[in-house]
Amino acid sequence: MAKVFVINGPNLNLLGKREPTLYGSETFEDVLSGLRAKFPDLEISYFQSQSEDELIDALHKSSTGEIDGIVFNPGAFTHTSLALADAVRAISTPVVEVHISNVAGREWIRQKSLISPHAAGVIQGFGVKSYELALSYFL
Amino acid sequence: MAKVFVINGPNLNLLGKREPTLYGSETFEDVLSGLRAKFPDLEISYFQSQSEDELIDALHKSSTGEIDGIVFNPGAFTHTSLALADAVRAISTPVVEVHISNVAGREWIRQKSLISPHAAGVIQGFGVKSYELALSYFL
Amino acid sequence: MAKVFVINGPNLNLLGKREPTLYGSETFEDVLSGLRAKFPDLEISYFQSQSEDELIDALHKSSTGEIDGIVFNPGAFTHTSLALADAVRAISTPVVEVHISNVAGREWIRQKSLISPHAAGVIQGFGVKSYELALSYFL
Amino acid sequence: MAKVFVINGPNLNLLGKREPTLYGSETFEDVLSGLRAKFPDLEISYFQSQSEDELIDALHKSSTGEIDGIVFNPGAFTHTSLALADAVRAISTPVVEVHISNVAGREWIRQKSLISPHAAGVIQGFGVKSYELALSYFL
Amino acid sequence: MAKVFVINGPNLNLLGKREPTLYGSETFEDVLSGLRAKFPDLEISYFQSQSEDELIDALHKSSTGEIDGIVFNPGAFTHTSLALADAVRAISTPVVEVHISNVAGREWIRQKSLISPHAAGVIQGFGVKSYELALSYFL
Amino acid sequence: MAKVFVINGPNLNLLGKREPTLYGSETFEDVLSGLRAKFPDLEISYFQSQSEDELIDALHKSSTGEIDGIVFNPGAFTHTSLALADAVRAISTPVVEVHISNVAGREWIRQKSLISPHAAGVIQGFGVKSYELALSYFL
Amino acid sequence: MAKVFVINGPNLNLLGKREPTLYGSETFEDVLSGLRAKFPDLEISYFQSQSEDELIDALHKSSTGEIDGIVFNPGAFTHTSLALADAVRAISTPVVEVHISNVAGREWIRQKSLISPHAAGVIQGFGVKSYELALSYFL
Amino acid sequence: MAKVFVINGPNLNLLGKREPTLYGSETFEDVLSGLRAKFPDLEISYFQSQSEDELIDALHKSSTGEIDGIVFNPGAFTHTSLALADAVRAISTPVVEVHISNVAGREWIRQKSLISPHAAGVIQGFGVKSYELALSYFL
Amino acid sequence: MAKVFVINGPNLNLLGKREPTLYGSETFEDVLSGLRAKFPDLEISYFQSQSEDELIDALHKSSTGEIDGIVFNPGAFTHTSLALADAVRAISTPVVEVHISNVAGREWIRQKSLISPHAAGVIQGFGVKSYELALSYFL
Amino acid sequence: MAKVFVINGPNLNLLGKREPTLYGSETFEDVLSGLRAKFPDLEISYFQSQSEDELIDALHKSSTGEIDGIVFNPGAFTHTSLALADAVRAISTPVVEVHISNVAGREWIRQKSLISPHAAGVIQGFGVKSYELALSYFL
Amino acid sequence: MAKVFVINGPNLNLLGKREPTLYGSETFEDVLSGLRAKFPDLEISYFQSQSEDELIDALHKSSTGEIDGIVFNPGAFTHTSLALADAVRAISTPVVEVHISNVAGREWIRQKSLISPHAAGVIQGFGVKSYELALSYFL
Amino acid sequence: MAKVFVINGPNLNLLGKREPTLYGSETFEDVLSGLRAKFPDLEISYFQSQSEDELIDALHKSSTGEIDGIVFNPGAFTHTSLALADAVRAISTPVVEVHISNVAGREWIRQKSLISPHAAGVIQGFGVKSYELALSYFL
Repeated sequence: MAKVFVINGPNLNLLGKREPTLYGSETFEDVLSGLRAKFPDLEISYFQSQSEDELIDALHKSSTGEIDGIVFNPGAFTHTSLALADAVRAISTPVVEVHISNVAGREWIRQKSLISPHAAGVIQGFGVKSYELALSYFL
Repeated sequence: MAKVFVINGPNLNLLGKREPTLYGSETFEDVLSGLRAKFPDLEISYFQSQSEDELIDALHKSSTGEIDGIVFNPGAFTHTSLALADAVRAISTPVVEVHISNVAGREWIRQKSLISPHAAGVIQGFGVKSYELALSYFL
Repeated sequence: MAKVFVINGPNLNLLGKREPTLYGSETFEDVLSGLRAKFPDLEISYFQSQSEDELIDALHKSSTGEIDGIVFNPGAFTHTSLALADAVRAISTPVVEVHISNVAGREWIRQKSLISPHAAGVIQGFGVKSYELALSYFL
Repeated sequence: MAKVFVINGPNLNLLGKREPTLYGSETFEDVLSGLRAKFPDLEISYFQSQSEDELIDALHKSSTGEIDGIVFNPGAFTHTSLALADAVRAISTPVVEVHISNVAGREWIRQKSLISPHAAGVIQGFGVKSYELALSYFL
Repeated sequence: MAKVFVINGPNLNLLGKREPTLYGSETFEDVLSGLRAKFPDLEISYFQSQSEDELIDALHKSSTGEIDGIVFNPGAFTHTSLALADAVRAISTPVVEVHISNVAGREWIRQKSLISPHAAGVIQGFGVKSYELALSYFL
Repeated sequence: MAKVFVINGPNLNLLGKREPTLYGSETFEDVLSGLRAKFPDLEISYFQSQSEDELIDALHKSSTGEIDGIVFNPGAFTHTSLALADAVRAISTPVVEVHISNVAGREWIRQKSLISPHAAGVIQGFGVKSYELALSYFL
Repeated sequence: MAKVFVINGPNLNLLGKREPTLYGSETFEDVLSGLRAKFPDLEISYFQSQSEDELIDALHKSSTGEIDGIVFNPGAFTHTSLALADAVRAISTPVVEVHISNVAGREWIRQKSLISPHAAGVIQGFGVKSYELALSYFL
Repeated sequence: MAKVFVINGPNLNLLGKREPTLYGSETFEDVLSGLRAKFPDLEISYFQSQSEDELIDALHKSSTGEIDGIVFNPGAFTHTSLALADAVRAISTPVVEVHISNVAGREWIRQKSLISPHAAGVIQGFGVKSYELALSYFL
Repeated sequence: MAKVFVINGPNLNLLGKREPTLYGSETFEDVLSGLRAKFPDLEISYFQSQSEDELIDALHKSSTGEIDGIVFNPGAFTHTSLALADAVRAISTPVVEVHISNVAGREWIRQKSLISPHAAGVIQGFGVKSYELALSYFL
Repeated sequence: MAKVFVINGPNLNLLGKREPTLYGSETFEDVLSGLRAKFPDLEISYFQSQSEDELIDALHKSSTGEIDGIVFNPGAFTHTSLALADAVRAISTPVVEVHISNVAGREWIRQKSLISPHAAGVIQGFGVKSYELALSYFL
Repeated sequence: MAKVFVINGPNLNLLGKREPTLYGSETFEDVLSGLRAKFPDLEISYFQSQSEDELIDALHKSSTGEIDGIVFNPGAFTHTSLALADAVRAISTPVVEVHISNVAGREWIRQKSLISPHAAGVIQGFGVKSYELALSYFL
Repeated sequence: MAKVFVINGPNLNLLGKREPTLYGSETFEDVLSGLRAKFPDLEISYFQSQSEDELIDALHKSSTGEIDGIVFNPGAFTHTSLALADAVRAISTPVVEVHISNVAGREWIRQKSLISPHAAGVIQGFGVKSYELALSYFL
């Protein structure tokens, strides 16, 4: 059974609690239950942090061979963290970058992802369904 | 049964015939057979054109209510055709933008998509599997 | 009787059918009837195309001496087609560039017209009345 | 009878006296007589100033309800005066921005109008006939 | 006998008919006769189109092995068509990019060629003699 | 008793009369009464002008030693008047720059203040309360 | 009694200890004592961290309804942390952004605040008195 | 006897009174006396204004034929007033642009003169001696 | 005996384990042993962290007077952390910035170091030997 | 017999000795012999220098009427020497600019030629065959 | 008697021989004779070179105390030679930068002088009279 | 015994004679004596030139196999000479780029080194000690 590690970056703990017009009203715990139900053949672990260093460590650890794939929503770090981009590049586990909102239609500072050049692929704009599409990649 | 229209832009008729390191060695006809086998619950129609105007017309027609969703790989028009972007914006049928290669890791002129702000979502970098992920959105 | 050729670019066939807050709810056929009624002294012909090459040919042909003036709404090609700009520059028939919406108040990619430097003049932002003002120039 | 206020910005008092290749050889007084003759149904008042503050005051006063429309050629202030742009935005009387020359074909500093996003519409490049087209909008 | 395909882009059908100070007064048909006379050892075929898609198709077809080399003047598409650039890159037939005028001395929008990085070489500024120099490359 | 000079730039005479969603519905006369009531220990004088030169003169005069501090809302001149910036720099009376709206959240042309580098400090975004905070600095 | 949370970002623990010409010679503990003495009607809590994630968490927690307002000096994160900007935007507690020095007069990289568009208002350049002005907003 | 009109722009009335390290300690009245003494063969008139419109009018009037040359220090308007640049361009009297300080060594916003392209010549950086060199041009 | 503190930023714990073509195959523990052997007259302490805040604290602590010099490889933070740059500027202990790879030859986002302007000096591109050269500075 | 002067700029003395993948393995002496054999009707002289001033002098001297044409490969000076560009512009002998490699496909600093706007034409990317094509222009 | 060293940069040996519309028809030898006649109280030496290094050496030597002032027309090096700018900065002899043409009205690459920030002053646009004005500074 | 060639670019002959606050008061001859004393195991030769071409030749000659390494301070050519960068790239002898001052803290035009991408490594900001660190690399 493939093991997939879902990692969420800063402020994503507020999902479903704030700015529902932008991000929807489901909490990520709800989303996660739905994903586990939908993908019984995947073992899905989960980590969220506001902390760039904890996210770097999470990526490093996932490269020990225990994890088959990573679904990573770096939140605002997408556009500012070269250190996270280096971590994604350094590990061999494939990383699928996901975004809930369609960042292409948002402000200019969100137009460039530092992570994408090192990701296996990118999925954005489908709401929380972006995670589902990303997980289906690892089936 | 949901009807999905797969539209490919310029040069994608060469898929599987040229630059296999960048785009793989399957032709799109092969890809299409695989997709139809994999998604028996979707009625998948297909159109490819080098022509911006034929692509605009294809998008316009799909908005007659006969089509439930569009999977659109605009090829190089992604970065240069504001007219196609206007067409995507003008119709109400949801459009999923797909790219075979990870354009984020390519040259600067491919860093900005004019289409994305008007798409329902974007999927890029998974090779021809990008189409599969896009279709699964319409299930 | 002066002969004026009205040429509309891509997506303008949707006029009155889509995005009425931006473009109004009249179709261009309605507009055209109104214009012909208002300008009995002008012989108004009309062409619309999504196709850059058909628009170039239309401009070339209008320079045979049969046409006294052109009213041209290049749509999204305003901002991307250097080939159309070259065609406008190459012919001697005067071309009035018109826009329905006030493109100056829209997104940055619509801030620069490639056509304008070669036009006899530019009229923008008056809704479909922009065409009327343009035609009155040829009276 | 509709009341239209024609306002000219800095250096336009030199019209017909200097740089005839760029601006023609008619003075604006000549132009004004012609316009009044041509539009007997419009009551046309006129003001010219080199002064940004007098122009702001002129725009403010025209919003008392006595004036139905403004035809405004801001001259060089088009490209440098955010204060005038704010005044155009603040008043409810519709303002048609006009330019004698086709600024799109001139130097880069004249490529961007600060006024246009707040104008009802823009007419440029038809020589002094730009004023006539603008006035016909208020018929 | 080497087979060379000469392809001209938009507006080049006007050659010799318009803007003689910029492009000379010979039509391309005249030029072609001269070239065939000058290069009896080359079999020279010719195609001109205003249409980006027909030009893409012409490039694709030339890669069937029947053609030994292409002399391509993309006209204004030089600076705007990434799709044509992709077509040049995708085929293995060598493409020599030619320009009649010295685009380096013209306006900024003509300073960057999207085609050049994928061409075998570039020849520009020699008037219609640019074609002759390009053909002599295939001798 | 400390003497503070409140200076308002162009269009601020419209305060409370136009665009209430952006600037509120109180006139500046109302605001001034409230400020004088709230700060009995300050002698508050007031000047408003649409005129850059009158504003420069007001700043120059305030440097005669009669004034202890200036609260200055330069309006749109914030972003365009280097001459006002020079005047603020040249005088020794401290100038507090205030803005009613949060200009940081508005269009790009309002992102840079020419005045700020020479001001004693900047207060922006608190509505008309910005003036109150500025005055409290001189207590 | 209104509860205000004062939050300081990275390196502000050095206040009063280093670079006195830029930041003054008072420690923030001294400043805080003075502020509590000056504002007996405010309950002032305080937090300083070098850590982006701890600052994000501090902002999140303050949105539980226990806190009426936040005075936030993000230090160097002002210009680099989109994640902090997202946190300020996501919470409903009003945030006043303060800066001790006048960042407008410093190097270019400090010219743009990512935080400001989401703040209730901004106060900068008054030395440590910036905090006092910010607190008086919550009276 | 040649008639030269010396025109000074905004804030230059402060000369000798403020910022002596940048502009010296002589007032312009002192400077003027010295210049008149040094150039007995020139009839030197003088005008200073903070007002863009008065400066435009001064330039316009000087073109009546009574004035042989203008020495113009536009102060901060050098870099922001396109209207003054248009006035300099429009008149036929030669204008020598002068600056007291070496603006090339100052902040970026002072690196570009809008006036210079239309001036007969430019003299900058020699302190008040710049005026002397400018006047000697008209001998 | 001089005390030198070697500080490594994010992802440098992977040294010798990943991307050997870019960074070599020695772990930093190996490097450190070699350095201590080579510099018996230096007391070398070491700290690595993925965490910006821990790195700021490490720099702050080193300024207590116990440390004579710092050798700092900020990794990806070189290009994104203004807070670390502020910390380097704030302390009086000299900091030598080192990089293993020659960042000048890498992607554009690595072309600008925020740290360098505040460093005592910079050494880059010598592989792990960069650390040795940096340490020899403190002999 | 037409006299052509072939001039090579800096580092081109290394041709055939270094970086053969980029520039080929023939020395320029070999190339020159081949060219003289191929063009018996041209008298070909040759000069190479690393020195901008010697190249300027070479261009100046060639304008004495003894030389009919110049084939000039400015090497790296193409992109940095405005003085050489001025020399090419100043002389009346036609100069054909050549490049061995296709500079359009190289790094950004090589994208702009200062020389090209003043050259009779440009030939690039054909390896040393670029010289042959250039010489054939003078036949 | 004050000693002034006049130094001319590349291509200025062509003065009076080429491009007379831009630079006039006098040779610099003629100009020099005129200057020596006009300034009997100055000992004027002269040097011209196409060579950046000879110009640097000339500047260095002039700082031995034998020379009271330098009049320097760096030609095209004005805009490209940082090494000459360093030389001007390094010596204590005052350098007056002169230009014959008004470079402000020429192409963008001539808009920025690297020399000016280090010059005593700048004189440009007066034709060869620029030298006369510069020399009069040393009287 | 390793042979190292120290090469200094323009103006470095002034070292110790001018601008001591920036470059120190030792002449390079003094520095060289110290280096030779400190590195008895290196044979250090030395060359300084203001001339780009002599520096190119010096680099070329050092690649004959007689030299083991080069320590190169290109002075101002660092930022402007693509020809020197090409020379460094073309030779196989390793080149260590050194700078006396910390160019990262100086004006923007010194922020980019054209040489660095081709150097073995870069050492900057340690005063003349930069040379010592560079030489120790060749031990």
